[in-house]
Amino acid sequence: MSAASGRTGRRAGDSGTREAILEAARGRFADHGYDGATIRGIAADAGVDPALVHHFYGTKERLFVAAMRFPVVPSEILERVVAAEPERIGETIVRTVLGVWEGPDTRDQTLALLRSAVTNERAAAMLRGFVTTAILGTIAGVVPAEDAEYRAALVASQIVGLGFARFVIGIEPLASTSVEDLAAAVGPTVQRYVTGDLRS
Amino acid sequence: MSAASGRTGRRAGDSGTREAILEAARGRFADHGYDGATIRGIAADAGVDPALVHHFYGTKERLFVAAMRFPVVPSEILERVVAAEPERIGETIVRTVLGVWEGPDTRDQTLALLRSAVTNERAAAMLRGFVTTAILGTIAGVVPAEDAEYRAALVASQIVGLGFARFVIGIEPLASTSVEDLAAAVGPTVQRYVTGDLRS
Repeated sequence: MSAASGRTGRRAGDSGTREAILEAARGRFADHGYDGATIRGIAADAGVDPALVHHFYGTKERLFVAAMRFPVVPSEILERVVAAEPERIGETIVRTVLGVWEGPDTRDQTLALLRSAVTNERAAAMLRGFVTTAILGTIAGVVPAEDAEYRAALVASQIVGLGFARFVIGIEPLASTSVEDLAAAVGPTVQRYVTGDLRS
Repeated sequence: MSAASGRTGRRAGDSGTREAILEAARGRFADHGYDGATIRGIAADAGVDPALVHHFYGTKERLFVAAMRFPVVPSEILERVVAAEPERIGETIVRTVLGVWEGPDTRDQTLALLRSAVTNERAAAMLRGFVTTAILGTIAGVVPAEDAEYRAALVASQIVGLGFARFVIGIEPLASTSVEDLAAAVGPTVQRYVTGDLRS
């Protein structure tokens, strides 16, 4: 184990190099936040060329997702959401996210992430930066309103609460309701947060 | 410390007796769940008369609230909600719960509770029993629909998510939005979950 994490072990193959990059990424994201961390800085810490980090992970978003074992790649979710008709954005978000969580692996990763956020202020700060920039920023790109970030935060509040009630607390009958029924029940909430009047 | 938790220390005064009752309550709620635990059983474990437990705490709900440092007494919230006009139940729930969380003490207690739920399966099970019976059961009493428990669980998902986004992750601008603005934005969601059509 200690040999594998040593400098020689790291270079032994792709998996060792990848692990070194992810370790450096976790350190940089923790120290500088999501916005402050750069691929250049992470590459320097890992002792590799920035081009190799780009080659392995593409974008900072994907590197964060891999390093933090984040359960979804927000921009991939966004592609599906953008492809939906404007008046169906709400149910599409609910259906897509719940669909992703149906997999036990992604569910475990989400639970691990929630656990870090509630027990560790540093993890919460890191998650806050990522959620704000990557998730909220991209949802905000879909919504042409000037209060887009507020709307995106409201969407996040309902989606996180739905995951919490369904998977962490396991409140019945919500925990065993089908994704389609939940898309019908919760979709209009999310739709209103994205496009509706929030002041009435 | 060890003298105070011994049998003699417990009987030395009210506070020692109360602590013995709360300790017995935590054990019984953990072993038997919220529904399975009885005041009689808790009194037996604490070596006191059940009448004394009733004298100190009134109901099992209040005993649970005290033992688990639960941030609110659900039936007190319910009183305010029931007093609201039917079409204002949603915003009243949002305003009341957010108002309670404005106090730093109750906020810390809520965070501690969320922490236990995500890190400890036993705590999650205990919380599930309490939420289902006390909170959902009482909200269900307000809603005359046959799918009342489903509606109550949806309400819980939005309220928990709102607390999570506002206080744990601290997503802006939601974290610094006024209670009144959030009551206007989120109230209609909760209202629809309580009285609206969930299948469209």
